[in-house]
Amino acid sequence: MFDLIPSGSVTSASGFLAGAVRAGIKTKNELDLAILCSEVPCKAAGVFTTSQIKSAPVVLSQRHIAKGRAQAIVANSGCANACTGGPGLTDALGMASLAAAKLGISPEEVLVASTGVIGVPLPMDKIRTGIPKIKPAGTGGHEFCRAIMTTDTKLKEMAVQVDSKTTRFILGGTAKGAGMVHPNLATMLCFIVTDAVVGVDFLRAALQEAVGCSFNMVSIDGDTSPSDCVFLLANGLARNQPIDFDNGGAFQDALNAICTHLAKSIARDGEGATRLIEITVERAEDRVWARQAARTVASSPLVKAAIHGNDPNWGRIVAALGRSGARVREDRLDVYLNGVCVMRQGSPTSFKKEDLTSALSKSDTVSIRLCLNLGDGQATAWGCDLSEEYVTINSAYTT
Amino acid sequence: MFDLIPSGSVTSASGFLAGAVRAGIKTKNELDLAILCSEVPCKAAGVFTTSQIKSAPVVLSQRHIAKGRAQAIVANSGCANACTGGPGLTDALGMASLAAAKLGISPEEVLVASTGVIGVPLPMDKIRTGIPKIKPAGTGGHEFCRAIMTTDTKLKEMAVQVDSKTTRFILGGTAKGAGMVHPNLATMLCFIVTDAVVGVDFLRAALQEAVGCSFNMVSIDGDTSPSDCVFLLANGLARNQPIDFDNGGAFQDALNAICTHLAKSIARDGEGATRLIEITVERAEDRVWARQAARTVASSPLVKAAIHGNDPNWGRIVAALGRSGARVREDRLDVYLNGVCVMRQGSPTSFKKEDLTSALSKSDTVSIRLCLNLGDGQATAWGCDLSEEYVTINSAYTT
Repeated sequence: MFDLIPSGSVTSASGFLAGAVRAGIKTKNELDLAILCSEVPCKAAGVFTTSQIKSAPVVLSQRHIAKGRAQAIVANSGCANACTGGPGLTDALGMASLAAAKLGISPEEVLVASTGVIGVPLPMDKIRTGIPKIKPAGTGGHEFCRAIMTTDTKLKEMAVQVDSKTTRFILGGTAKGAGMVHPNLATMLCFIVTDAVVGVDFLRAALQEAVGCSFNMVSIDGDTSPSDCVFLLANGLARNQPIDFDNGGAFQDALNAICTHLAKSIARDGEGATRLIEITVERAEDRVWARQAARTVASSPLVKAAIHGNDPNWGRIVAALGRSGARVREDRLDVYLNGVCVMRQGSPTSFKKEDLTSALSKSDTVSIRLCLNLGDGQATAWGCDLSEEYVTINSAYTT
Repeated sequence: MFDLIPSGSVTSASGFLAGAVRAGIKTKNELDLAILCSEVPCKAAGVFTTSQIKSAPVVLSQRHIAKGRAQAIVANSGCANACTGGPGLTDALGMASLAAAKLGISPEEVLVASTGVIGVPLPMDKIRTGIPKIKPAGTGGHEFCRAIMTTDTKLKEMAVQVDSKTTRFILGGTAKGAGMVHPNLATMLCFIVTDAVVGVDFLRAALQEAVGCSFNMVSIDGDTSPSDCVFLLANGLARNQPIDFDNGGAFQDALNAICTHLAKSIARDGEGATRLIEITVERAEDRVWARQAARTVASSPLVKAAIHGNDPNWGRIVAALGRSGARVREDRLDVYLNGVCVMRQGSPTSFKKEDLTSALSKSDTVSIRLCLNLGDGQATAWGCDLSEEYVTINSAYTT
């Protein structure tokens, strides 16, 4: 139903421009301040952190997006502007106003996103100097993506084209996130744009649905952040037949694909990670419990450390499942590790440990499949292995 | 109200005997099979893992302790006898029967506890050869404690004497646990005995209360196990005035002290840990939420990694608090790290980072205090730092 656009980005969709500068917010001399904007006003939807500690940009953007409209996003890395009190909110508004002035739009049309260290005031002098220097262009997608990275080692972006008899439009997305990543978002930012004409209520519902099966199914370390947000902007320039609940299938599929790709990219690029772990829970009581079970296994430090060591210590997988809250009947449980059945109906199988260790050591992606044999609930979650490098990265982040 | 008994153990209480042997269940030539028994039948209470995947010894011991009676505990390390299906339960019963035969009591009077690798059958030949060789004695407490260790590096035991005008008795306890440790017990075993005369209903309630403020407030890595259990045996040989709900204060205090000491010992000895972290939440809405908040902060890998690096990155503490579910008002929140206020009413303070980093680097115990200023709920949780060594230990546990 959709085609991947080679080297696609957020500027693959018609009428979206992006640009970034080195404002000096990061200690390294890297891109750290960026704008993504549309030539015309957009319908807009957002999903935000569920944490009770919300960053100033989250508070401001929640307010701005409430009307279902936006035309631009201004984002920075290096400083999260979180836990910064009243002055932090003033700074977030200042950042929106500077971007609005540059673009000739109202500050209420600007969404703000900041990522980086918590509890440090935003260096407004650098923001003030930097924003006017940004030159948004139709080729700026990759640059924008690079500017929102913190401990990410890889660009995370994707664009697809949906083309059918009745409709034709493009969706492009980018995300950042490598640590403090866990269900109910993460220290992650994600920006998705489309040139499709979409009804705003459907836009909101479609984003919720896509986040539910993608970003909310990723865990790197169980920690979430006050900054997490996903924005979806639709500018309508594709002039397609308007998309709504009755005809939104292809749009939803494309959106799910982008969100799932970005979510998996985040997991694979987890701090210190050497591989992706994909956990599928099948035949759980229902989808809610399947999701909960898959996420719990994805979050287990012991499972993650075992995978890091190519250790088929499947008891840890079962132990994590057991504490997930999902109903489990041990005597019905089948467990597969990279396709090899290691537990059948609650009892260990006589798999060859050396063979499985060897297979694991060669796997770029390790698959864990848990078949609960209780109902028809199914879910997939993604995580990554836990390495010594994760600790090294995170034991000296601000020092 | 109670005095610490120097070098106290589970055999400090009158009429309790213990012994252990090297049965060869552990790959290293170490003590790994042990018996703790009383000269006379005891009132007994137990608290077990809440996981839906329960080890065979847990299933059996829950059945045996249901009557509120027991006279002996047989325990082994090196193999958890968990996820071993029907044969596992037969083995657990076999282990109880062998211990019962040796002691001349009924198998129903024996509780069983196994800890170690999950999903591997118990080597019954070694159990069968080992149990008859155990020589329980009044001096065997330390030996028993050593035999239940897995990745533990330190003995965890304590005994106290309660002495008042009306009553005089001893409580002794021992525990093991260093990894897979999290609220709602852990890969932990704990055995507490007393020579006090205690009503069985009060014994059960007192154990629940003590576990609630001690073992359930410890987290090493967020993982729990199918083997977790705490047993409390009272043999009545102190012939004190019977203890019950109306006069149980001193007993409860002593029991809480033992459980808290053992819980903290487990946190301090966390796999790869170099220090204890003590998180106190004050003025939360109520105690339930205070506990939830303290445990969430104790479980955060990012907080733990920061403490490991002496990094006063308090934003991570606040981020963990924000996702705990406890009600938080950012503008009322005060945060202290080793006594230094780093956030006041939601805003960063101007503390000297270098001084705090230096102070942290010299701290054997790091204290985190969160004052929510919302109600009168208070709780303390314990955890440990996250080191590269934790990953190293856990990436090659069975290989």
